[in-house]
Amino acid sequence: MAFINENYLKLSPHYLFPEIARRVQAYRVKNHDAKIISLGLGDVTQPLVSSVVEAMKGAVEGMADEEGFHGYGPHRGYDFLADAIIEKDYNGRGVDLSREEIFISDGAKCDVTNIQEIFGSDNIVAVTDPWFPLYVDSNVMAGRTGGRRENGHYEGIVYLPCRPENHFIPRLPQKKVDMIYLCFPNNPTGAVASKEDLKTWVDYAKENRSIIIFDAAYVAYIQDPDIPHSIYEIEGAKGVAIEIRSYSKTAGFTGLRCGFSVVPKQLKAYQKDGKHVQVNPIWYRRHTTKFNGASYISQVGASAIYTDVGNKQTRAVIQFYLNNAAFIRQELTRLGYTVYGGIHAPYIWMKTPGGLSSWQFFDLLLERANVVGTPGVGFGPSGEGYFRLSTFATRENVEEAMIRLASM
Amino acid sequence: MAFINENYLKLSPHYLFPEIARRVQAYRVKNHDAKIISLGLGDVTQPLVSSVVEAMKGAVEGMADEEGFHGYGPHRGYDFLADAIIEKDYNGRGVDLSREEIFISDGAKCDVTNIQEIFGSDNIVAVTDPWFPLYVDSNVMAGRTGGRRENGHYEGIVYLPCRPENHFIPRLPQKKVDMIYLCFPNNPTGAVASKEDLKTWVDYAKENRSIIIFDAAYVAYIQDPDIPHSIYEIEGAKGVAIEIRSYSKTAGFTGLRCGFSVVPKQLKAYQKDGKHVQVNPIWYRRHTTKFNGASYISQVGASAIYTDVGNKQTRAVIQFYLNNAAFIRQELTRLGYTVYGGIHAPYIWMKTPGGLSSWQFFDLLLERANVVGTPGVGFGPSGEGYFRLSTFATRENVEEAMIRLASM
Repeated sequence: MAFINENYLKLSPHYLFPEIARRVQAYRVKNHDAKIISLGLGDVTQPLVSSVVEAMKGAVEGMADEEGFHGYGPHRGYDFLADAIIEKDYNGRGVDLSREEIFISDGAKCDVTNIQEIFGSDNIVAVTDPWFPLYVDSNVMAGRTGGRRENGHYEGIVYLPCRPENHFIPRLPQKKVDMIYLCFPNNPTGAVASKEDLKTWVDYAKENRSIIIFDAAYVAYIQDPDIPHSIYEIEGAKGVAIEIRSYSKTAGFTGLRCGFSVVPKQLKAYQKDGKHVQVNPIWYRRHTTKFNGASYISQVGASAIYTDVGNKQTRAVIQFYLNNAAFIRQELTRLGYTVYGGIHAPYIWMKTPGGLSSWQFFDLLLERANVVGTPGVGFGPSGEGYFRLSTFATRENVEEAMIRLASM
Repeated sequence: MAFINENYLKLSPHYLFPEIARRVQAYRVKNHDAKIISLGLGDVTQPLVSSVVEAMKGAVEGMADEEGFHGYGPHRGYDFLADAIIEKDYNGRGVDLSREEIFISDGAKCDVTNIQEIFGSDNIVAVTDPWFPLYVDSNVMAGRTGGRRENGHYEGIVYLPCRPENHFIPRLPQKKVDMIYLCFPNNPTGAVASKEDLKTWVDYAKENRSIIIFDAAYVAYIQDPDIPHSIYEIEGAKGVAIEIRSYSKTAGFTGLRCGFSVVPKQLKAYQKDGKHVQVNPIWYRRHTTKFNGASYISQVGASAIYTDVGNKQTRAVIQFYLNNAAFIRQELTRLGYTVYGGIHAPYIWMKTPGGLSSWQFFDLLLERANVVGTPGVGFGPSGEGYFRLSTFATRENVEEAMIRLASM
């Protein structure tokens, strides 16, 4: 008799975005003419820049003849991309990495949910609250938690509240934790961590032999060079941290599927008997067994981001979204809302007005302004009373949304 | 303290293909001028057909403007591809499926290794011997096995020998099994299963409430319409089987990454208390949590295979490889070798001559003919004394390889 993995049955029946889609659809059915503006989902709207398009066209054309044809790629991804990553993303920030430490993937979502597989099932997992739901869901599926509490927390997970009082930077946990998910610039709060903030965590991980899974999907939005772009800018981080990056928000690759993870050779985990194990070859084994590379076309496209022209073009698109963010911040502040994030991140984290719950504000915005955002509580109970606005929209829609909010 | 998943430490240190690469590299270092012909790896060599190339070029160009830009795709993949799959791959064979049952992915390797995650860790897994190594490795990683025996078998897995005596079709196991991996046309033996063969297994699964994971990656190579193309051609199979397909060998997509799985709505698995659970929504949850879609460009390319021109072009490439297979079969038979497969499959499964072990024959072929194949024992102990030749090579290389074997 084939048993199901019963851990899946612990998951809440509705994942956040399908529930949003359901409510929007229900509203649409009753209001055919409503012109709904979505500032909800974190999907980009600007087209690919021309240098990426041209590079991919060349790659596609090359696949039409025997010389230019590319079948299975190298296990860790193509060197042309790994080399660009090392030079442009890391060397420029004073971080040295080797090709063997770069694992090109089909995106950060896959990496951030798959990475837990290589760790023991008894590890205690810590996440910030609010958190990106999939950090937790992937650990629930793997059996690292107990049941779900009424507030959305799972037994066995350590939640680290992030609120205005701590500037959305988590304090160290009281209880020892083994795997820590950190995301800066943060989704959903838009907060960034300083060197001191990250050093606190790296030191904790060194002391407790924990592992930090550092989600840097939004690094391209950092506007201040003094803010660390990589956790490896902190001394000793290579011994305790995995870093995951994405081209989705950097260059509009949500539909192309390409990202990468860094698993340094120094990184260690432990056997039950206390012996240490190098994590890099274990992840290599997982990567080569349960994955078969990102599309060659997407890897060629990603490499174009690192050319001078490609970099300039993608920076311009990021600036476009950051301008949206600045405009939303300004308008919401003018309207009397309390607003966080949106400076080094594409997300605005706003306080709901008048003590409304996140979902109450969601429904209000949908019905009164035909604007869709994301209820903060969908990212965890510490997100209750907050609301996320994504800035991945056209300027026209952003301006129209703010006019509607003003007249609400 | 972050513990490692110690199941990874049970895996043999060298996976088959890296070991082949290592031996080839060692030979090359000593023999710079050797013109090595690879009939080893199952990677294709023929370029993409023009209809796929043109469709992908159009998709890439579309991504350059706001109207044609595609970000995150639908969770299960694009309808334009799912609809083509249902109509052309299934309806034509008398199988009815709905869109909700099709899950487009980044390839069969990922699906076939990820699928086990949604099932309980106590399930008994059965594989044929020889087998595609990743069926087993993914279950070892997930903790469904004990340690590795000297012959390469893992404690806890049920191995079903496939040898000439049973025409490479596994007999039903003595011990009850819960998850059964079947692959037809088979890699590595090239064997195909008749309706009666598959019915035996579907009936077994119905009776024992087991689940069959049916790997149909090589279905496009079947030349006889009477051979089942899908396990769902067998009555009742929708209640007990998942089918996994790939565009890698069908249309040269090894570098593009696109395939799909079928998880019928009727398919059930069980909770410990005996209650049944519908598998489709559980896989949907896994698919939407730990995966974010295949590249839009690749999905557009895959849909071009289903047009009249695309179908004709891809059939021609498949025929090219099948002609290679027929030629290799003919030459090896003429030289006195015993040969299986290569009729409805791109793999030739040959008996090593003179009682040589698989690796002895590998080394002999490499040294004396500069031809690389795959040692049968790499697929399991029942593969000892056999050798796999892939037919994914240029005609020139295939002919040259056969000349060298003749003069050995």
